Amino acid sequence: MSDHIVKAYGEALDLLAGDIARMGGIAESQVNDALSAVMRRDTALAEAIIARDTKVDAAHKAVEKRCTTLLALRQPMANDLREVMAAWKISSDLERVGDLAKNIAKRTLVINQSDPIELMRGIERMGRMAATHLKQVLDSYSSRDVAPALAVWFQDEDIDAHYNSLFRELLTYMMEDPRTIGPCAHLLFIAKNIERIGDHSTNIAETVHYLVTGEEIASERPKADDSGRGD
Amino acid sequence: MSDHIVKAYGEALDLLAGDIARMGGIAESQVNDALSAVMRRDTALAEAIIARDTKVDAAHKAVEKRCTTLLALRQPMANDLREVMAAWKISSDLERVGDLAKNIAKRTLVINQSDPIELMRGIERMGRMAATHLKQVLDSYSSRDVAPALAVWFQDEDIDAHYNSLFRELLTYMMEDPRTIGPCAHLLFIAKNIERIGDHSTNIAETVHYLVTGEEIASERPKADDSGRGD
Repeated sequence: MSDHIVKAYGEALDLLAGDIARMGGIAESQVNDALSAVMRRDTALAEAIIARDTKVDAAHKAVEKRCTTLLALRQPMANDLREVMAAWKISSDLERVGDLAKNIAKRTLVINQSDPIELMRGIERMGRMAATHLKQVLDSYSSRDVAPALAVWFQDEDIDAHYNSLFRELLTYMMEDPRTIGPCAHLLFIAKNIERIGDHSTNIAETVHYLVTGEEIASERPKADDSGRGD
Repeated sequence: MSDHIVKAYGEALDLLAGDIARMGGIAESQVNDALSAVMRRDTALAEAIIARDTKVDAAHKAVEKRCTTLLALRQPMANDLREVMAAWKISSDLERVGDLAKNIAKRTLVINQSDPIELMRGIERMGRMAATHLKQVLDSYSSRDVAPALAVWFQDEDIDAHYNSLFRELLTYMMEDPRTIGPCAHLLFIAKNIERIGDHSTNIAETVHYLVTGEEIASERPKADDSGRGD
């Protein structure tokens, strides 16, 4: 293979990694903004997030297209193939993260029509934890340093534990004041969405580990067990 | 390329399609059983579903492995590349369908500790619709006849409409009898899981359409709009 082709090939992979970094940046903003919108009862921001979700979808389609082109025209092998498949998987996770942020924004619009609910601190704490994990796995992808990704993988149970206690608190709140059942039901789903964002960061951590080491993470992921929430 | 290689290559793709058909069969059973377990309050069946989820995960890993091997060793192009990428995507959707069925089963275990709730007919109707859609898109994948997949794609809004009315009914039920808040919260999530299974069938329909025609579905998917459920 000529140097020219090798160089062009490395450039194509760099462009792909750049796509993922940009897409990750958008997804991160969407998550942070969605959390701000819920906390500040900010309807205008919620609407902006909903409108911006098309950007995440477009970035996802662009990554899929670049991956397909790379596979078809370059027929990558070994490490290079791993690069392409990792980008493909990470962009699928980021697309779902974008959907979850959009869903939080949509529910914010509904919640804002009712009186404020307490328990928002729990949502905020859990949300910031999920946002930090997302940032950490994306940094890990960019730097190819697997340590931060592994740390996220082991810490996901903290988010699960927060979700469990929030689930219980919200049910108690609803029972004490049935007028709050509507908005609290949406908060239950918002909490669930944040927990799912955490799961996607865990998926990305697994993909980065495989990309960098060529091996799957060996041990079983610790999981906060709680049959009470049925999850 | 020699006839021998061409033949072996076709066989490898047939094996891949066979993997998807088998995995689809398992995912379908898990969904049908999860619905039966909720409806019949069948704790033993729910536990069996939870245990069987490892089968879906193993099938997913096997498909990913076969796809990676095909891409690395055979470097497929055009239609063949589409076959591999379609299998990869469909197996990701089926893995999530398996997770959602497992989650329905876990919540069934919790719900069975409380008195029966009405409104189960709505869950059943919505669930059977989602199960039918899943079967239809998998048949479409096997037969390479895109018509049933397209029909599912256009009918997903029926599931969404069911979900909307069920969401409202469940909230009313909780307000009328706050003792039902716990189990009803789990039913809300079960309804959401069924709606998500419908979304995965829609994704599979899109993948089958792309696989068979080489084109994305052109029009916008009709979507039952309902800001009241924030989704």
